[in-house]
Amino acid sequence: MVRFLGLITCLALLGTSALLAAAPGDPPIKVSAPLASWRDTAAKKAITDFVVRVTDEKSPDFVPPAERIAVFDNDGTLWPENPMPFQLAFALDELKRRLPNEPTWKDDPAVQAAMKGDLPALLADHYKGLFRIIELTGSGMTTVEFAVRVRNWLATAKHPRFHRPYDRLAYQPMLELLAYLRANGFKAFIVSGGGADFMRVFSEHVYGIPPEQVVGSNARTVYELRENGPVLVKTLQHLFVDDGPGKPVGIHQFIGRRPIACFGNSDGDLQMLEYTTIDNPRPSLGMIIHHTDAEREYAYDEKPKSSGKLVKALADAPRRGWIFVDMKSDWSEVFADGSASSGQKP
Amino acid sequence: MVRFLGLITCLALLGTSALLAAAPGDPPIKVSAPLASWRDTAAKKAITDFVVRVTDEKSPDFVPPAERIAVFDNDGTLWPENPMPFQLAFALDELKRRLPNEPTWKDDPAVQAAMKGDLPALLADHYKGLFRIIELTGSGMTTVEFAVRVRNWLATAKHPRFHRPYDRLAYQPMLELLAYLRANGFKAFIVSGGGADFMRVFSEHVYGIPPEQVVGSNARTVYELRENGPVLVKTLQHLFVDDGPGKPVGIHQFIGRRPIACFGNSDGDLQMLEYTTIDNPRPSLGMIIHHTDAEREYAYDEKPKSSGKLVKALADAPRRGWIFVDMKSDWSEVFADGSASSGQKP
Repeated sequence: MVRFLGLITCLALLGTSALLAAAPGDPPIKVSAPLASWRDTAAKKAITDFVVRVTDEKSPDFVPPAERIAVFDNDGTLWPENPMPFQLAFALDELKRRLPNEPTWKDDPAVQAAMKGDLPALLADHYKGLFRIIELTGSGMTTVEFAVRVRNWLATAKHPRFHRPYDRLAYQPMLELLAYLRANGFKAFIVSGGGADFMRVFSEHVYGIPPEQVVGSNARTVYELRENGPVLVKTLQHLFVDDGPGKPVGIHQFIGRRPIACFGNSDGDLQMLEYTTIDNPRPSLGMIIHHTDAEREYAYDEKPKSSGKLVKALADAPRRGWIFVDMKSDWSEVFADGSASSGQKP
Repeated sequence: MVRFLGLITCLALLGTSALLAAAPGDPPIKVSAPLASWRDTAAKKAITDFVVRVTDEKSPDFVPPAERIAVFDNDGTLWPENPMPFQLAFALDELKRRLPNEPTWKDDPAVQAAMKGDLPALLADHYKGLFRIIELTGSGMTTVEFAVRVRNWLATAKHPRFHRPYDRLAYQPMLELLAYLRANGFKAFIVSGGGADFMRVFSEHVYGIPPEQVVGSNARTVYELRENGPVLVKTLQHLFVDDGPGKPVGIHQFIGRRPIACFGNSDGDLQMLEYTTIDNPRPSLGMIIHHTDAEREYAYDEKPKSSGKLVKALADAPRRGWIFVDMKSDWSEVFADGSASSGQKP
């Protein structure tokens, strides 16, 4: 796979209508014991120590439930981002699916580059081609139409290595962590470079995170009252890329409170980790998922296959007190059932 | 008071840091009986009938708790907007307070107009002067500094008619309605033309609505890691005015689900009412607070004193099935204790 570092920063905007987001019914996450897939290592202890500390009403570090905000990156933190961010896989599949019915597309240089798999061409000239692909596949339709397309894709597409639907690749230890935090009065938000409209289609049934707790890249929709009802049409206007320094900006805009716990995996999470942990008047926890497990998942940091470069946050972690989760040694399971780890190595 | 219709549409952006928003402690709303300040009229019955209908698990109209989203306008719906929107009062007070220490301000035509109370001049040329006032008083500082200023203002300023702090002017029946909906599994959001950063300072202690459930006008902040910690600096870039057709846009962007209940009072809420009630696959309720009580509050619709013009939504209500709340006949109390109604008439 061609390497396209830092790609996630411009994967903005395919984006949802969460109208269609969640199948009502059973809670999405079943956990037998708290943090059952976490081995008894320092990472697990850091989590449980922190939670005990902020939930003990007699502790000077007690944090009222309303302020127990936890933020999670998505790609590489809650599910994989290899061989490419899942949202890019969606965009390329959408391009192929719609191409026969879009006669004007085939002469578009960006479409031609995408069809040839020529990612350097897509990324040249400040990601011009990639933005064009995002524009073609993620704007000009209503939010409801877009959500239907994402749902249809999730129902049919499979991950090339793990051979299962993309929305069945959430990390089991992270699902347990979400459940554990929820059980302790935390409110968990996704804060991701991925498109909000894309993530909201699956966030509730995969993570138990409702659409209103998903902060992602977004652009402004346009309201129209049509004959058969009101719609919101997706555009690329006022694009907001919720990555890097954009993450604290998105946290303030959407949540309006400083988090006390932050989970990320790459330099795109650096500023969100800073905003959570540096000079926070409340106790805080910053954690970095380190991809160290080529056997069961992937191993990378400074040279990822696609997005997920981890250099600056890796270097800053010791002086900031951020704690690493070593995927290989800290997690007894990676995926919700063992089958995914039987996938071929990349 | 000079009339400045439609003003709320540009009152955007003074806007929070909810860091400082809520005093932890007792729940903010004390209600003895559900909807105790609502008389037994059609409006109250419409509310209770709707809530029973969507919460009865045996009903075909049952709505799962996660989808019980209710949206509330703020100015004129949860508290008054006369003689001017409270946020405008804040901006003018801020201007006066800071003027002695800002030597460059006194030659600014917008400042001069504001100091003279010349609102027509502020509103001329597409609200150019007003935006300048908002820029001077609501940008260029950190979100934390801004929140401190709003808090200080709330602690000292008093409403000119009711002679009490602005944050003690929430409508008692609406506080009861919020509590009633919460008790029935609803999640209530403010969706207001007011600045998010402004409203989040008081939304939790006044309404019991946490900052992450406040959707308002906003602009993009800029992240900086300073020597004494991370900050977000307020700007007017990418201004979003959460009013009129902007309200469904804001609802989608921040909540990502279609509401099933909507409460407003002016034409600025028209599209939010449409988005909630027209062709919604779920049962829905649209209500309009009609200001009919000059004795205890104010009486206006097509000719408000300041913001809050109600013409189009008034005309559309019958065919849309939107229900009016007649403040004078439907509410036995307007404010949390009787004292406010002893204020002089406007």
